[in-house]
Amino acid sequence: MSDRILLDCGSGGRASHRLVADLFLKHLGNPELNRLNDAACLNLKSPLAMSTDTFTVDPIFFPGGDIGSLAVHGTVNDVSMLGAIPRYLTCGFIVEEGLETDVLARVVASMGTAAREAGVLVVAGDTKVVPRGMVDKIFINTTGVGEIFVDPTPSGDRARPGDAILVTGSMGDHGLAVLSTRQGLAFDTPVVSDAASLNHAIARLLRAVPEVHVLRDPTRGGLGTTLNEIAESSGVCCEIVDEAIPVRPEVRDGCSFLGLDPLYLANEGKFLCILPGELADAALDVLRGDPLCAGAVRIGTVTDAHPGKVVLTTRLGGARLLTMLEGEQLPRIC
Amino acid sequence: MSDRILLDCGSGGRASHRLVADLFLKHLGNPELNRLNDAACLNLKSPLAMSTDTFTVDPIFFPGGDIGSLAVHGTVNDVSMLGAIPRYLTCGFIVEEGLETDVLARVVASMGTAAREAGVLVVAGDTKVVPRGMVDKIFINTTGVGEIFVDPTPSGDRARPGDAILVTGSMGDHGLAVLSTRQGLAFDTPVVSDAASLNHAIARLLRAVPEVHVLRDPTRGGLGTTLNEIAESSGVCCEIVDEAIPVRPEVRDGCSFLGLDPLYLANEGKFLCILPGELADAALDVLRGDPLCAGAVRIGTVTDAHPGKVVLTTRLGGARLLTMLEGEQLPRIC
Repeated sequence: MSDRILLDCGSGGRASHRLVADLFLKHLGNPELNRLNDAACLNLKSPLAMSTDTFTVDPIFFPGGDIGSLAVHGTVNDVSMLGAIPRYLTCGFIVEEGLETDVLARVVASMGTAAREAGVLVVAGDTKVVPRGMVDKIFINTTGVGEIFVDPTPSGDRARPGDAILVTGSMGDHGLAVLSTRQGLAFDTPVVSDAASLNHAIARLLRAVPEVHVLRDPTRGGLGTTLNEIAESSGVCCEIVDEAIPVRPEVRDGCSFLGLDPLYLANEGKFLCILPGELADAALDVLRGDPLCAGAVRIGTVTDAHPGKVVLTTRLGGARLLTMLEGEQLPRIC
Repeated sequence: MSDRILLDCGSGGRASHRLVADLFLKHLGNPELNRLNDAACLNLKSPLAMSTDTFTVDPIFFPGGDIGSLAVHGTVNDVSMLGAIPRYLTCGFIVEEGLETDVLARVVASMGTAAREAGVLVVAGDTKVVPRGMVDKIFINTTGVGEIFVDPTPSGDRARPGDAILVTGSMGDHGLAVLSTRQGLAFDTPVVSDAASLNHAIARLLRAVPEVHVLRDPTRGGLGTTLNEIAESSGVCCEIVDEAIPVRPEVRDGCSFLGLDPLYLANEGKFLCILPGELADAALDVLRGDPLCAGAVRIGTVTDAHPGKVVLTTRLGGARLLTMLEGEQLPRIC
């Protein structure tokens, strides 16, 4: 293969076939992908969960991950949030002409490792190469399917007054790690992305406590936006306690330096769990047994005080609305 | 909504939610998509077919279609080629900051129309907005799932000596339509893309003649590349007759003007069907009953003469190898 990705590599001809064989099949290969048919043939038990996400993160390598592993984690997590075991992924690559072949190889190898760890197979793929300047390096779409194993499924419209609101760890790590790498900022304590596949943790949780009402991963828009979506969909009030929300000191310091609020920064390895209050301790016990959720805590309660709103209180008794932002001014975090 | 797509529209905040409600749900909405969960919940009978494709076509509007309708047709067709009824699609949009909102609305409306005609539902979506210059206008990934209804499924490795090779109509229309629009070329007879969803035609064919060995849509790389893939996968020789291959006069003229071979140009509304020779006439009868396949003809025969090769003969007796090209020098045709 040449040192750089050429337009020919996306043409469907010999150069495309070499790229597929030498790079994609090498790192992602399995019997179904290796058939190279127009579509993969799969066996899955219904009901199914299906989700899609496109990754445009800049830079493509950041502390704690890269665009390849992130593309696996992100979709594995979205499928898991419906109470499903993710099984299969498809990958769609858009590559800029001239990208170093080694860079693409590192990204694809990283996807392969992430997929094996999550226990999912990549069963179909597509690669387009576009002329230089028509895309920034590499964008990746992943779409996943999985088997739903709880009934009813967790859903954003199922939060009820009396439910406890849990998060599985510190907020804002991913967003700040990517942003500070992009800006070339160095903090005393480096900020590392939390990007990880949460499917195994979610499966353990739901097997122990199937009565979970809502599962969501607070990615774009962060905890603040995700809670607002849930409050609106369920017609309830999410009351959370400021001091209870875990934020690493280095993330708090970095945010205060940059004028950002960690509650609106993207996370890629944490989830929100809303469930009947009396089950909160049991859920926290299960969660804390998983290294990815060791920092799980209760951050608040669902009430009927202000339907559709999120209220942030302090232990001293202050309270303010945590609104959904218009935008977040941090494009290309995922 | 503002006249142009802003970075905020992809942030996950209020602007994102407005774009989803005013544009995506308006044109693509259905009960599952409208729930706006992280993943869609689906019921499907196994075995399933699953396929993904990313569309980067330039220009995004061309005679006979646009990037939105093409993104539906392309994935519907890939799922259908496995002998499946396509049921559900996901869509991943990457939009350039500053794109006119009306342009995005036209593309999404066109997807909605194409999906309704094909009988598929869009059940999950994702939109990223990237800063100006980081992507060229709009790229779309679609991933589709469908229910396989024949056993064994058509597959590129099932061509056998004695099989007939059929195509469902003229070759090269899509590739030349896009290229001539991009270059601003005007021919006496305008060339129009053949882009169309073939799922209904394929379902009728397979119900009448389930013994089909191979189905493939000759998209990137065209008929020449697709036949080479089949010859290699099946370890057979594809012998085709030059004069039997349908090419419109305006496509032949345009190709000769531009120095292109229509046998390597992309098609988006035609398919190749390889099946036992004695069933060829029955298959052609069924195909010709569908307006999209009215031009179906037999173009050749599978033999064991030169395993892995494609041989093009003329009626006067000449013969040459039709090789797989290195590339095709026509990026962004689909």
